[in-house]
Amino acid sequence: MRLTRYFLPVLKENPAEAQIVSHRYMLRAGMIKQQAAGIYSWLPMGFKVLKRIEQIVHEEQIRAGHIPLLMPTLQPADLWRESGRYDDYGQEMLRIKDRHDRDMLYGPTNEEMITDIFRSHVGSYKDLPLTLYHIQWKFRDEVRPRFGVMRGREFLMKDGYNFDVDKAAALHAYNRHMVSYLRTYERMGLTAIPMRAASGPIGGDNTHEFLVLAATGESEVFYDSAVTDLKLGQREVDFDDRDQVKAICDEFTTLYARTDETHDAALFDAVPEERRKVGRGIEVGQIFYFGTKYSEAMGANVVTADGSRVPVEMGSHGIGVSRLLGAIIEASHDDKGIIWPEGVTPFHAGIVNLKQGDTATDAACDAIYKALKAKGLDPLYDDRDERAGAKFATMDLIGLPWRVTVGPRGLANGVVELTSRRTGVSEELTAEAAVARLAEIYADW
Amino acid sequence: MRLTRYFLPVLKENPAEAQIVSHRYMLRAGMIKQQAAGIYSWLPMGFKVLKRIEQIVHEEQIRAGHIPLLMPTLQPADLWRESGRYDDYGQEMLRIKDRHDRDMLYGPTNEEMITDIFRSHVGSYKDLPLTLYHIQWKFRDEVRPRFGVMRGREFLMKDGYNFDVDKAAALHAYNRHMVSYLRTYERMGLTAIPMRAASGPIGGDNTHEFLVLAATGESEVFYDSAVTDLKLGQREVDFDDRDQVKAICDEFTTLYARTDETHDAALFDAVPEERRKVGRGIEVGQIFYFGTKYSEAMGANVVTADGSRVPVEMGSHGIGVSRLLGAIIEASHDDKGIIWPEGVTPFHAGIVNLKQGDTATDAACDAIYKALKAKGLDPLYDDRDERAGAKFATMDLIGLPWRVTVGPRGLANGVVELTSRRTGVSEELTAEAAVARLAEIYADW
Repeated sequence: MRLTRYFLPVLKENPAEAQIVSHRYMLRAGMIKQQAAGIYSWLPMGFKVLKRIEQIVHEEQIRAGHIPLLMPTLQPADLWRESGRYDDYGQEMLRIKDRHDRDMLYGPTNEEMITDIFRSHVGSYKDLPLTLYHIQWKFRDEVRPRFGVMRGREFLMKDGYNFDVDKAAALHAYNRHMVSYLRTYERMGLTAIPMRAASGPIGGDNTHEFLVLAATGESEVFYDSAVTDLKLGQREVDFDDRDQVKAICDEFTTLYARTDETHDAALFDAVPEERRKVGRGIEVGQIFYFGTKYSEAMGANVVTADGSRVPVEMGSHGIGVSRLLGAIIEASHDDKGIIWPEGVTPFHAGIVNLKQGDTATDAACDAIYKALKAKGLDPLYDDRDERAGAKFATMDLIGLPWRVTVGPRGLANGVVELTSRRTGVSEELTAEAAVARLAEIYADW
Repeated sequence: MRLTRYFLPVLKENPAEAQIVSHRYMLRAGMIKQQAAGIYSWLPMGFKVLKRIEQIVHEEQIRAGHIPLLMPTLQPADLWRESGRYDDYGQEMLRIKDRHDRDMLYGPTNEEMITDIFRSHVGSYKDLPLTLYHIQWKFRDEVRPRFGVMRGREFLMKDGYNFDVDKAAALHAYNRHMVSYLRTYERMGLTAIPMRAASGPIGGDNTHEFLVLAATGESEVFYDSAVTDLKLGQREVDFDDRDQVKAICDEFTTLYARTDETHDAALFDAVPEERRKVGRGIEVGQIFYFGTKYSEAMGANVVTADGSRVPVEMGSHGIGVSRLLGAIIEASHDDKGIIWPEGVTPFHAGIVNLKQGDTATDAACDAIYKALKAKGLDPLYDDRDERAGAKFATMDLIGLPWRVTVGPRGLANGVVELTSRRTGVSEELTAEAAVARLAEIYADW
């Protein structure tokens, strides 16, 4: 994309309403615009990152054998009356009446609706295991929405639901989700630590939250620092292999890591003192096993191999897709702006033309732009007639991980400059070598 | 995807509530489930087609130089008070009060919000031309939703908005949309004819609807049959070239083609009698040029090259994304089921194993499945333990354009069968040749 043809409304001033860095940088980098309290438009660059995150979530869910569908944003109240949650849910549920005065609501989550889909179509253990998920906009009418997309009212969530014939199979689904989430977050450049959580209104015993360490996190967290060294990496996972999947979960949940809700001081004291850490964390996902809570209330039964009829075993598993943009920025920025991890960056590299209008420099930038596109990369070419300083400031603010700087002086020596946003380290190399390096870097992402 | 691991709840019976063929087949093929009047869940196979259609729309908009963003589903009423449409819009607008008693609405369209985004960030002709679009769920509270996704209440729409410095530039944007839409529909296997339309509540003089001919269409259409022979095809279009883009529009709008709303009997009579056709059509898109209607009301001005300040020239341009599934099925089916065009099919080919459990047949199916995936194709392998007749009936119903049938008798002769869903013609060839043929067919899509 050429910047002169793009819509990237960066702000020079720090917006007064933004209290935390991710909110501030998302506004300043022209990623979002508030339309009402807690309701945002995703401007082009924000939308691109949102789509990259969504794509990673889809790929990792599909890899785990989970099946995407899409439920609507609005739901009939009657479904929620069946589970009893229509009355239990407080003012956070946005209640709506349609023109025929029927009670509707904007879905804050989808346990009832997915259970309805299941009971309408599935009746036998032969169709199990089954995990269905969707990525859809939700609404929770927070009394005081704040922190930009971190605590919005209209937000994008991945929520998945497993259906299994017995508890052992359902716990395998729970573990499968944990492993798929580990990889999902790692691909976004995040260290998200699964921590034992309290179950809350959805119910259920087995539940973990995934927390990203950041000073602005809403939860206090207590952990063994060794937990931050764990990596799933590229290892091959057979998601049908219960033992392998369970072993990975054990690996990631044995070291102490809890939120204030489930913190156990005695257990924490057993962690070697130099590894005992207290910090703050941002919740970016949660997994639950809740058994037959919804299937019993809503009559979602299956016939088992021995002919008996039992309520199906379920769990639900969520990732805060829109909130992740904020969490990633909280975890990865400096005082000049955002530093995108390669896995979610809106553009793979920025090209800065130091002398727009100079024939040779323009031609070199064009050639690099085309060569990167030919490699399947998505560059942003700053072709504005602006001073170098302004161009660098924009690139630093929007946080593309790599910058190619092209100017007459370098070209006279046959080189351009390749700069890492994270380290600030630059290296001079030929244009061809810069393109090849970028292709090599992104081959791993 | 292996069918035993998928969620494809096909129905044997014709659902009583479905009056038109697309609604019937979408329910029977397990693509959608109604959750409330005019509100649907998109089951996995329906969701896949929806995503393929969305992807084509994105690709063609980006090719035309238009920029994607995403506006929220809920909007503050105040924006609509500025344009005057909050009161004008009737009961089709779903009005909502949040917990603080603020007036909100579920967006039926986005002229006001996009104008608000524009005026907040753009003030100079130097930032023009600019076309922003999104694909987002909309809500129109139809008094009597019907025909499945063809006339739902919650529906997915692409709506794009151009901002230009003068009328000539805005009309070029209008033409650019027309050409991009022609290609969009062709890639979906549709003949969608641009027809002069009446302007309706959005206002404006220049407006065309795109209609797909189908007996169940809601509009009566009058056209010169030669118009159905026009094809944009693969021709190279320079979307910055006003003359070229205009010439294509002229080519597609000179022959007579109008809906009952704008029909002119005298002009129609001038069409040679044997080419004079009357039929029905389904609207799948509409483009509007409306000038300064919203920019004047909402104060969206730009400074021109000569320093004067003028309201920006605008238009809006929509594609009914979810409705397109219905329209495609109405235009492409037979009495056994759907016939997906290659461009939007949920799976590229079906593999039917005639003797599940037979070692050689299973191995041959597995090999074909893997070979198709290695070619980047997305096959559906019917690995159920079912009779051949049931498997064929499912494949015909769900309408994959190509089927590979594998059985012991063929394998003994070293062949499998490749069958076109559209023509019913089968051909015997080696498994390798079948895979190569499919890769060749889809290379063009």
